[in-house]
Amino acid sequence: VSGSRPDDAGAWFRAEIVEQPAALRRLLDDADAVVAAGCAIRRRRPRFVRLVGHGSSDNAAVYGTYAFGLLSGLPAFRDSISLSVYYGADRGLDQSPVVALSQSGRTPDVVAYVDRARQSGALTIAVTNEPDSELASVAEVVVPLAAGIERSVAATKTYVNQLGALALLAAGAGGRAVETVDGLARTADLLAETVDRLAAPAEEAARALVFAGRLFAIGRGVELASAREIALKLTETCRIAAEPLTTTDLSHGPVAALDALFPVWAVATRDPCLPTVVEATARVRASGAALIASGDAAGEIEGAALRLPVPTGPAPLLAPLLSIVPGQLVAGALAAARGLDPDRPAGLEKVTLAA
Amino acid sequence: VSGSRPDDAGAWFRAEIVEQPAALRRLLDDADAVVAAGCAIRRRRPRFVRLVGHGSSDNAAVYGTYAFGLLSGLPAFRDSISLSVYYGADRGLDQSPVVALSQSGRTPDVVAYVDRARQSGALTIAVTNEPDSELASVAEVVVPLAAGIERSVAATKTYVNQLGALALLAAGAGGRAVETVDGLARTADLLAETVDRLAAPAEEAARALVFAGRLFAIGRGVELASAREIALKLTETCRIAAEPLTTTDLSHGPVAALDALFPVWAVATRDPCLPTVVEATARVRASGAALIASGDAAGEIEGAALRLPVPTGPAPLLAPLLSIVPGQLVAGALAAARGLDPDRPAGLEKVTLAA
Repeated sequence: VSGSRPDDAGAWFRAEIVEQPAALRRLLDDADAVVAAGCAIRRRRPRFVRLVGHGSSDNAAVYGTYAFGLLSGLPAFRDSISLSVYYGADRGLDQSPVVALSQSGRTPDVVAYVDRARQSGALTIAVTNEPDSELASVAEVVVPLAAGIERSVAATKTYVNQLGALALLAAGAGGRAVETVDGLARTADLLAETVDRLAAPAEEAARALVFAGRLFAIGRGVELASAREIALKLTETCRIAAEPLTTTDLSHGPVAALDALFPVWAVATRDPCLPTVVEATARVRASGAALIASGDAAGEIEGAALRLPVPTGPAPLLAPLLSIVPGQLVAGALAAARGLDPDRPAGLEKVTLAA
Repeated sequence: VSGSRPDDAGAWFRAEIVEQPAALRRLLDDADAVVAAGCAIRRRRPRFVRLVGHGSSDNAAVYGTYAFGLLSGLPAFRDSISLSVYYGADRGLDQSPVVALSQSGRTPDVVAYVDRARQSGALTIAVTNEPDSELASVAEVVVPLAAGIERSVAATKTYVNQLGALALLAAGAGGRAVETVDGLARTADLLAETVDRLAAPAEEAARALVFAGRLFAIGRGVELASAREIALKLTETCRIAAEPLTTTDLSHGPVAALDALFPVWAVATRDPCLPTVVEATARVRASGAALIASGDAAGEIEGAALRLPVPTGPAPLLAPLLSIVPGQLVAGALAAARGLDPDRPAGLEKVTLAA
């Protein structure tokens, strides 16, 4: 996929962040088809759902486990691709629907996994931005992300639309379509507001992080996906060693590594997991590390050096569609401050064909 | 748990690494009881198994997904604790046995999760080094790790015994007990050899890493658990920002962060996933980053600056019990070189009561 690229590094990345509300609305234009795929999951009366993907798509799969858990009551798990594809241990692949996530639809082992699953009789659903891709051709059902061409190597709008698609699938599986479609439409409006409002605070955060070499991003529950995706954006576009952790895993070891030169980014959202975030950030403060707080409860994190608050979404499950924006904007601003190009990070291609 | 501690920092940590073969043999002394717990899983005819834990115990749970997949054909997944404990979304907790991992048996949300699972009718199995703990009291079946008192805050022998216990549980569930008990007994012998043989190479690796601030640890398949646990040891005892990644996830973004000052530790084991490790390390070399290769296929990683080879285990599934040793030994040596105390890392307690 090529296109006429503006001269300045990161122009595509920044433009695609701004385009996210429009991209999400395009997904919603065909919401009924995605909901129908979710209904097909329910009709199989499965005991559980399998999710697979790599990179940003795996972060979206983390979100998917919560979307299915909260909207459909169905257990959903990220499956090991290697057990099926490399070890040949399929473990009843026929017994659960598979939701496979790949923006390009060309990730080789995801394609191979879906191929095996379909041949064994599983309902297979490909969630991809490329409805003509190999993944789409091997899956029984295709959910197009409808994000439009994404030119920057670092994914943004395809990630948000993956979250939207997973929410719609889970809503279809759980009979919660009307409220979810409505919530996502309102989220698209809030997303536009968030992108505008956070531009200046993101520049300030980028200035503060300009010499940071490492960082932990923490979150819990539905926001674990956001912590993971924020860490991935900062790693791939800004060359920070940014590691995502659950708030509890931080306390089980990594907190010992913190000091004043090792900042922690906490995703704080008003939901039942917030107390764990508050507790973890108290440990972070005690270590002397600087805190960056984002999310709609950023104001509740005491002692944060920087705050990147986002509006409260229509439902806790939809919060991650907004919570990711501060991470994207800081990544864009910090890459620019470091003279890096998030459109084309060193050593990466838009389509990852790695085994 | 207290004890008379030698004067030198890290003395417990190093002693407990050396003690691992004996600890594993103690677990095997009562292998029949662990296998019987695995048979109880099979008798329930479950569609899948749930695993829960934090920190090192979560790394062991990663191993557990492969142990069940390869030995029993049962799908096993690490479940979200927060969905049940914080969001109240139990998603058919009665429909699958639960294997809960906590060395201390006191991790609060693991206890709460098991309590809910048992009340809903699930078979609950606590794998813990403290058979009198709260976790043991709420679970239906207790599998004691029999590792002996672990005094160092950074876990070593309890981790190896968790892997052993999970292999025995999966073997019981899959009717593979005899070969697995035999394989683990041979692994205990190889473990002793590995600890001896790697002391000098680990010192050399520690000298090379003395000023490293960040590192990626990569592995795939059964060795993802090792990559995670090596990264955790280096983070908590040496204050390195060490992030674990699958070989494929490395290529989906983080490879862009690499340069000559950002080393990568690759766990290379002779099994069906080795080609993905070889491919990922070629990308690492192209980035200019220094490579450390461990595992029984360390010799097959071209261009590695340091190699920490381990003996080949009796079966690919048992390799992680040996693959972890280089990580433990380097962590001990590097902590000493940095003047840090792995027995008592800053901000950590042996029992993590964090939410």
